Amino acid sequence: MTAATTQSTLGHDTPQVTARAKVTGKAQYAGDLKVAGMLHGKVLRSPHAHARIVSVDVSEALALPGVRAVLTGADAPRARWGVSHKERRILAEDVVRFCGEEVAAVAAVTEEIARDALDLIRIAYEELPAVLLPEEALDDEAPIIHDGRQNNIAHEIRFERGSVAEGFAQADLVHEATYTTHAQYPGYLEPMGTLAMVDPEGRLVVWTSTQSAFLARARLAAALERPVSSVRVIQATTGGGFGGKIVEDANQLVAGLLALKTGKPVRLVNNRLEDFLACPTSLPERITLKLGMTRDGLIVAKDVHIVADCGAYAGLTSEVMHVSAMRSDNMHRLNNVRSHATLVYTHAPPHGAFRGFGGTQMLFALNSHIHMMAEQLGLDPAEVHKRNAIGAGEVSVHGWKVASTGLVECIDQATAALHWHEKRPAQPDGPVRRGRGMAAAMHVSGNRTIGNWDGSTVVVKINEDGRVMIHSGESDMGQGAATMLTQIVAHELDLPLSHVSVMLPDTDVAPFAIGSFASRVTIVAGNAAIVAARKAKARLLDLAAILLEVPVDQLAVGNAAIHVREAPDRQLAFADIARQHIWRHGGEAIQVSATWDAKTVMHDDKVYGNVAPAYSFAAQAVEVEVDTETGRVTVVDNFVSDDCGKALNPMAIHGQTNGATVQAIGWALYEQLQLEAGRIVNGNFADYTMPTADAVPMLRGGFVESNDPNGPYGAKGASETAILPGAPAIANAVYDAIGVRITDLPITPEKILAALRRRKEAAHA
Amino acid sequence: MTAATTQSTLGHDTPQVTARAKVTGKAQYAGDLKVAGMLHGKVLRSPHAHARIVSVDVSEALALPGVRAVLTGADAPRARWGVSHKERRILAEDVVRFCGEEVAAVAAVTEEIARDALDLIRIAYEELPAVLLPEEALDDEAPIIHDGRQNNIAHEIRFERGSVAEGFAQADLVHEATYTTHAQYPGYLEPMGTLAMVDPEGRLVVWTSTQSAFLARARLAAALERPVSSVRVIQATTGGGFGGKIVEDANQLVAGLLALKTGKPVRLVNNRLEDFLACPTSLPERITLKLGMTRDGLIVAKDVHIVADCGAYAGLTSEVMHVSAMRSDNMHRLNNVRSHATLVYTHAPPHGAFRGFGGTQMLFALNSHIHMMAEQLGLDPAEVHKRNAIGAGEVSVHGWKVASTGLVECIDQATAALHWHEKRPAQPDGPVRRGRGMAAAMHVSGNRTIGNWDGSTVVVKINEDGRVMIHSGESDMGQGAATMLTQIVAHELDLPLSHVSVMLPDTDVAPFAIGSFASRVTIVAGNAAIVAARKAKARLLDLAAILLEVPVDQLAVGNAAIHVREAPDRQLAFADIARQHIWRHGGEAIQVSATWDAKTVMHDDKVYGNVAPAYSFAAQAVEVEVDTETGRVTVVDNFVSDDCGKALNPMAIHGQTNGATVQAIGWALYEQLQLEAGRIVNGNFADYTMPTADAVPMLRGGFVESNDPNGPYGAKGASETAILPGAPAIANAVYDAIGVRITDLPITPEKILAALRRRKEAAHA
Repeated sequence: MTAATTQSTLGHDTPQVTARAKVTGKAQYAGDLKVAGMLHGKVLRSPHAHARIVSVDVSEALALPGVRAVLTGADAPRARWGVSHKERRILAEDVVRFCGEEVAAVAAVTEEIARDALDLIRIAYEELPAVLLPEEALDDEAPIIHDGRQNNIAHEIRFERGSVAEGFAQADLVHEATYTTHAQYPGYLEPMGTLAMVDPEGRLVVWTSTQSAFLARARLAAALERPVSSVRVIQATTGGGFGGKIVEDANQLVAGLLALKTGKPVRLVNNRLEDFLACPTSLPERITLKLGMTRDGLIVAKDVHIVADCGAYAGLTSEVMHVSAMRSDNMHRLNNVRSHATLVYTHAPPHGAFRGFGGTQMLFALNSHIHMMAEQLGLDPAEVHKRNAIGAGEVSVHGWKVASTGLVECIDQATAALHWHEKRPAQPDGPVRRGRGMAAAMHVSGNRTIGNWDGSTVVVKINEDGRVMIHSGESDMGQGAATMLTQIVAHELDLPLSHVSVMLPDTDVAPFAIGSFASRVTIVAGNAAIVAARKAKARLLDLAAILLEVPVDQLAVGNAAIHVREAPDRQLAFADIARQHIWRHGGEAIQVSATWDAKTVMHDDKVYGNVAPAYSFAAQAVEVEVDTETGRVTVVDNFVSDDCGKALNPMAIHGQTNGATVQAIGWALYEQLQLEAGRIVNGNFADYTMPTADAVPMLRGGFVESNDPNGPYGAKGASETAILPGAPAIANAVYDAIGVRITDLPITPEKILAALRRRKEAAHA
Repeated sequence: MTAATTQSTLGHDTPQVTARAKVTGKAQYAGDLKVAGMLHGKVLRSPHAHARIVSVDVSEALALPGVRAVLTGADAPRARWGVSHKERRILAEDVVRFCGEEVAAVAAVTEEIARDALDLIRIAYEELPAVLLPEEALDDEAPIIHDGRQNNIAHEIRFERGSVAEGFAQADLVHEATYTTHAQYPGYLEPMGTLAMVDPEGRLVVWTSTQSAFLARARLAAALERPVSSVRVIQATTGGGFGGKIVEDANQLVAGLLALKTGKPVRLVNNRLEDFLACPTSLPERITLKLGMTRDGLIVAKDVHIVADCGAYAGLTSEVMHVSAMRSDNMHRLNNVRSHATLVYTHAPPHGAFRGFGGTQMLFALNSHIHMMAEQLGLDPAEVHKRNAIGAGEVSVHGWKVASTGLVECIDQATAALHWHEKRPAQPDGPVRRGRGMAAAMHVSGNRTIGNWDGSTVVVKINEDGRVMIHSGESDMGQGAATMLTQIVAHELDLPLSHVSVMLPDTDVAPFAIGSFASRVTIVAGNAAIVAARKAKARLLDLAAILLEVPVDQLAVGNAAIHVREAPDRQLAFADIARQHIWRHGGEAIQVSATWDAKTVMHDDKVYGNVAPAYSFAAQAVEVEVDTETGRVTVVDNFVSDDCGKALNPMAIHGQTNGATVQAIGWALYEQLQLEAGRIVNGNFADYTMPTADAVPMLRGGFVESNDPNGPYGAKGASETAILPGAPAIANAVYDAIGVRITDLPITPEKILAALRRRKEAAHA
């Protein structure tokens, strides 16, 4: 007889452990939270892109029955907040710099009263000239948006590796083009929301929708001028982040300020329009790319100029632009690269972090470019990528140590799925043309970027019933962190998932963590979870060896128990061991902690250095139909192949790649923020057209398991890479279908028709 | 120049860290908690001491608008709960065993509706013969209260050490008397209360007024037939416990059941009458004590018989009676002791743990006895205690290792304060007579009693601002545990108290702990806190040594910073070190855990063994006035001297000794539960007369610092010992004043007058 063991879920489709609470409506998002005496917050936003606040009169608003506080810039702390540039007040004073900027905040007994009170706040503005385009902002005559920022330059990156001039001299083909990318709204189902209150000890307690409870705490403390220890942030169930819920939005800060000023709990939840106005959208970049290639398709030189528009406040955009300027260089074997990137303030609503984090922008340009050059050289663009692809064990031009890569396999898998090498798409009769395109991408799994730590600490507790609780400060915003941690700890301890639970991050409870971005959680927290679980298991085994009077190496774990390998009937349930671990001389409950930190470096001042413990890769192939009469582009087939290292939960990764594909389709074809004089005029899901089911083909995808030596069981991050190749694959397919190269996203029917018209006119000229 | 250091508060009067929230009304007791959708619970209690439930009809109650659930025994889990005897259902079914037993529970949208619904529950009872006195219950003909408990005996203790027969043979004086003690209601300001809800994952979350969150969790899990891990208990601010809030009351269980059945948050807060009916009151014991003494006052034999009335359910009373049967033996150098104690079920409301935990009962008898014998031998009772007092380093008759004792010093201090040896009280003119009495006592600090562990784990976190958070599962129910932990950690890290905070126990967060009873928290959690704080300090020092490039032994801590001893300007703030502890290769936040377990043993089956890491002692002297016309006794002066080892917070210990003195006065003179046919008829503060300010003298007290080698900085527990000598000191003073020995508490005017009358009649006879 052998004792039964629990089937590990690792590598098997595993529903999210958070799913039941979500689908039954029981999960508590910030907007679901209600506490006694709670007030409702509302924010008054600037109607102007640039204006001076001449006078403020809140008396009428304050007089409205039910209103408990009306705060303006004068009531807000003097501290300025921001990521690298501390430049933004919680509520604007004197000057507003974008249309949507927080100017006043109300707390009232109902949301309706709070909303009505906004209408009673009298603010006189003197409109000032607004600069809405980065090219204008760079003009010497342009108004300065932030004091001391000459030419409105927020940040500038310049580097050259190898010799670009020598590289181009070796090239058989040099191609240069300019690409423009636009801002995408993250479109999470749950708008930003916060419930803030002051606890009996005077500490500020904040439940919030966030990708990082600890970064939220640090920002709240700094912006509200309080010690970090006087702030407690608890992550509410979070309905998506996509980069928008890191640290760039004022929602938490306004809610915290209202709670501190009123002494009451205040809930502040954006409605969709407010969220459009307040949320950072992805960074629009104008990318001028020049590549040199040999006739064999080897890239010998790259020169890129980027001008990016951060909007009124820089937020995380310096880091985003940094990624655009250099990350994709590491995908290929390059020697000669040069980047010059300039981040420019405008009076547009602030841009910021977004799934892909600057990779999408540059990979749109690069993949478009490679397609064009391959065509000129008579090469298959897929082959060009493969010929240039960096190999496992190699060090990239920027010093990245690529321990594993499935790039070539991803390209093969994606192209094969669309029969890339077998046949051309059959062209139907009529005005519709079919075409195929592909693109390749790379991303980081973790990134030693915000400081010299890219680690995570996981605490594993074993309760007296032998069940396990995990404390981690890493956020599950829907991407599956809690499920991943549960799977790993359950696997290591050979327990069913139901015996393991993960507490939502609470900064008073969880070990310090950075949060969910840079596709870091699986690799850093996953590795920490393995170590912590093994430590906990060792505690169980050590005591079981004493109790069973057998050496540890003769024991085995299974079925929530430890048994003697050769005599499985001699066993002790985890519950028994856990209890006896306490109830003995010198005992204590089993509660262990483990930290895993990536063996990476921060890049040096020449942006050189191995910043991530692993790098993930992806490739995508799509087939589109272009209606040459209407200009409409439809993605009719697709396959995205994701090198996730090891698919710990295939179902979850399919969810990620499917979502990424749809979000990429939205960015490439449909979604477009419409601004008039700097004002978002389509801030709702009727007018901001995210892809609906009929705009999306059957979503297909697969994995390549490159088994990264640094990843937990070989796994790498699988949240972001798959969004990267979508837009250029579509642009390439459009080109393949109709011979028209669209370089400015999104690829709208108007642009298709205009390009077709231009080509026709040129042909007739 | 030397760097400033923070003044340690250890040994100095320190306001409770919880005081501000409490006095400003911000502290959240269970009854203050409100959450959205919360229902209010109410409990229907048996009107009979013993009855069969013939029929139950809840239809009318359920039909009342606003009622969400009406539960009876049939709806409650089959599990039976209790401490050593599992014998009680959450809601009674078939049989009720005391007047006040929980029979049905209602949840409704308002408390008023819930109360009204109780009136609509139709329960038909068949009254059964009730046994209300233990002597009756022991009768062979008495009805059996619990199946299988022959003669209604719940527990029996018998032991003999040495030879009592030989001891009495050596005695010059043998004295025997019987003493009766009565039940005291703990009289905390906050009645029991719980808010229970089911979280989105289906776990039961309970905020409750408790002395032990983890024991509460274990009991909830067992009684509600759920895994421990599916229950989360969070201690609400707790307004006193005095033993009543350990694990003997059904409030939490009923609230939990209502929450599980309704799926809604349910708050169940006792009003005062309900609390009188539901709360365990102290254990009434009938003690027949026989002592043998030499003419020098040395005690050579002790024989005691105890009959204790546990009421309808045994709860913790076996352990309480155990203490009565043997603890006070360890105060003196005894060789020949014998105890026979019998715990008997009756149909009275259940009795249980109470401050002093059985010590008060026996020490009333013992101190009364010694006073009488000393008088007969012409000795000073204070001198008799001192001659018999166990010394430091000695092992008592039951194997207790008394590492420190200040008993003699306590006796000297208390008697000196009342000029014991200098003068007799002046007798005023008129009917009032003055008298003085003293008594001595001992108690445990910790107790290896509920299992083979008497430890505590403390977690110390240092946040990025250099401030500290402590996690402990030990409860602060007002006695000052949080302040003690704060003081210790602040002292070890040389921080102001404001930089240290303690989280209320939360079983999902705090390390496993047993809770607050047996005066254990200062010694076990205090020691753990020292170790944890020193570990955290070592982390700071180790990193500071690297950063300052100086060996650790050249560094010093002070002013929330670490400086080079010989160059104090070279320093790093804790905040800087804490941040750099994270932000470096292999870094992590400072979060350390330490466990301290007492080096004690569980007593063997002959109740022998050193059960506590330290033992505390106390003595009290009082002066009373007895009005011989009205029988009224007034305590006019008192001094209680407490051997607390080391007074970590003199203000807090004075608070404890003052409170203990008043509670002892109440028990001795004023408080008396009135029962009619087993029904408490004075369950309110108008009729149950706790001492008011005019019944209490100027409260005087002092410490003896015996500096226990096992205590943190020498400290021992200081919550319970001071209650022990109060009642016998008063009884002795009454005897001293009027020559009347009252052996049955409380010492009411009626008893005084009756005794005076008897004496007068005897004198005239």
